[in-house]
Amino acid sequence: MSYSAVDIKEGQVALDSSKWLKEVRVFAPATVANMICGFDILGFAVDHPGDEVFMERKAEPGVTIRSIQGDDGRLPLDPDKNTVSACVKMYLAHLGLSEEVGVSIDLIKHMPIGSGLGSSSASTVAGLFAINTLLGEPLTKAELMPFCVEGERLACGHGHADNVAPALMGGITLIRGYEPLDIINLPVPEDLVAGIVFPQVDVPTRDARQLIKEKVALKDAVTQWGNIAGLVSGLFTSDYDLISRSMEDVLIEPTRSILIPEFEVMRQLALEAGVLSFGISGSGPSVVAISKGKEAAQKAIDAIQAHLNQQGIESFQYLSAVNLEGPKVLSKS
Amino acid sequence: MSYSAVDIKEGQVALDSSKWLKEVRVFAPATVANMICGFDILGFAVDHPGDEVFMERKAEPGVTIRSIQGDDGRLPLDPDKNTVSACVKMYLAHLGLSEEVGVSIDLIKHMPIGSGLGSSSASTVAGLFAINTLLGEPLTKAELMPFCVEGERLACGHGHADNVAPALMGGITLIRGYEPLDIINLPVPEDLVAGIVFPQVDVPTRDARQLIKEKVALKDAVTQWGNIAGLVSGLFTSDYDLISRSMEDVLIEPTRSILIPEFEVMRQLALEAGVLSFGISGSGPSVVAISKGKEAAQKAIDAIQAHLNQQGIESFQYLSAVNLEGPKVLSKS
Repeated sequence: MSYSAVDIKEGQVALDSSKWLKEVRVFAPATVANMICGFDILGFAVDHPGDEVFMERKAEPGVTIRSIQGDDGRLPLDPDKNTVSACVKMYLAHLGLSEEVGVSIDLIKHMPIGSGLGSSSASTVAGLFAINTLLGEPLTKAELMPFCVEGERLACGHGHADNVAPALMGGITLIRGYEPLDIINLPVPEDLVAGIVFPQVDVPTRDARQLIKEKVALKDAVTQWGNIAGLVSGLFTSDYDLISRSMEDVLIEPTRSILIPEFEVMRQLALEAGVLSFGISGSGPSVVAISKGKEAAQKAIDAIQAHLNQQGIESFQYLSAVNLEGPKVLSKS
Repeated sequence: MSYSAVDIKEGQVALDSSKWLKEVRVFAPATVANMICGFDILGFAVDHPGDEVFMERKAEPGVTIRSIQGDDGRLPLDPDKNTVSACVKMYLAHLGLSEEVGVSIDLIKHMPIGSGLGSSSASTVAGLFAINTLLGEPLTKAELMPFCVEGERLACGHGHADNVAPALMGGITLIRGYEPLDIINLPVPEDLVAGIVFPQVDVPTRDARQLIKEKVALKDAVTQWGNIAGLVSGLFTSDYDLISRSMEDVLIEPTRSILIPEFEVMRQLALEAGVLSFGISGSGPSVVAISKGKEAAQKAIDAIQAHLNQQGIESFQYLSAVNLEGPKVLSKS
């Protein structure tokens, strides 16, 4: 699929208000950006955690945030500042519905903010999927993508798609390029499982980005793209050995891992548990152990959590297959 | 497939001298390293041009070069300095046969030296394939790979495998990594055709390498590995549009193309002819136009050659599907 920037204009979309719903509750999944070796181009979705949006149509036009749960008061309720509502407003504006449609939003965050699990992307995708469902699906999922990327730009200051693409499309996604946005769904080997541990330490995405050098050694870049090509090849052939050999990050991890306590110990524990690979989820501090089947991943995250406990670091763990569906409707009426 | 460095030792290989032949003539194909976007990791073989080796067993031990045709006297006849004979000597030494086997070699170069078409690799692969055939194939093709990489090191000063891997294995090869050598055969879409033009100007590989900067911008590296991942994905799905979008080199071509006269005009002519992509073959000066079906590639190389003619630059053209076989025996007895 190839997507341009948001280019859907008023009048181009068939709108049928008889299909509009009263309310909808949707879920959108957390995502593991980079998939260890594919900085800024690869990512995959997981079944949980994820965020929920409850959206209700109002009589008067306008978008409001009625409540946010699970954010410890960190997210703005101002509809122009909150990413979810800002994206919904952008969506309505592009469809020429700003003066016609009003919604109130309840955002239920089931996942920690600043975890490296695509928290803002999950909320953005949930919000856009909710409004599109509420209005009888005038746009396809693919057509929602440019709005999601804009949402990421609002939330993080740059329009990266390695979280929103898998959150919206499900599965493992490749962002081949940005101009125009070119997103490819890669095959998902059946037994691929992700074990995630989120150590409760603060690593803001912006700081994690600033650590990364603007210039890299060509020889390291060659190693990295050999691994990326190997990973893509391994996904197509379900070659778990090749996937394992390929999922190594020689460029970004060496600097980013400095911000993550006990990183090398966690890696050792994961590899001892027999996972295919271990690395940082997105910009961290969450770490991910990817395995064939659930057993090794579960063993890895149990061992990691036990170790973090001993060090006095609280953490959450999640075990999940790759989510193939992306966002889903939990209820509607 | 994963290969270690040359690790086959005397006594480990079953040798059966009753299978030994008297003489053998083999062909090994030219190759297009990098495949435009995959610097140092991708390459493919073509049906022609290529090099021939005629090898004859002698009564007395030792390796000699009897003749070299088509090299304009540029290649050494000294068996320790000529890459083909040096590799054959290395092969015999590893199999413990240096004191037992003697061969004389005729090397027939059908392809220009310093063309960017893997000239030394084709000769090396032909030589190693010939000696292995002559001795009743004690090693598999895959087991010959480390010897081929060593040959490339002798010829070019570095053990890159992006020419020898496709020359030996045929098809499109990915060198995932070097330690250990990890070579993956990628699928070849049925209608993929390469049109090659070799302009007769001198661009030594060493100079072309020295132009390349040791550091690259991370953002360009990300663009490059997005393209590489897209290309691999397109090869698996025979998605020619995706292959076309992906085969773009933002890192190496901008500097290397400076050494190639009329590069931008040639690109324009190729794209006007409707090819999927156009770029440098290996380190140049040969250029390659990759198309779906023969027509566009033929049109492209005809137009390019006509233009070079007008500029007073002589050139050769070659049109070929991707070679799937690698080296082959032309005759034996």
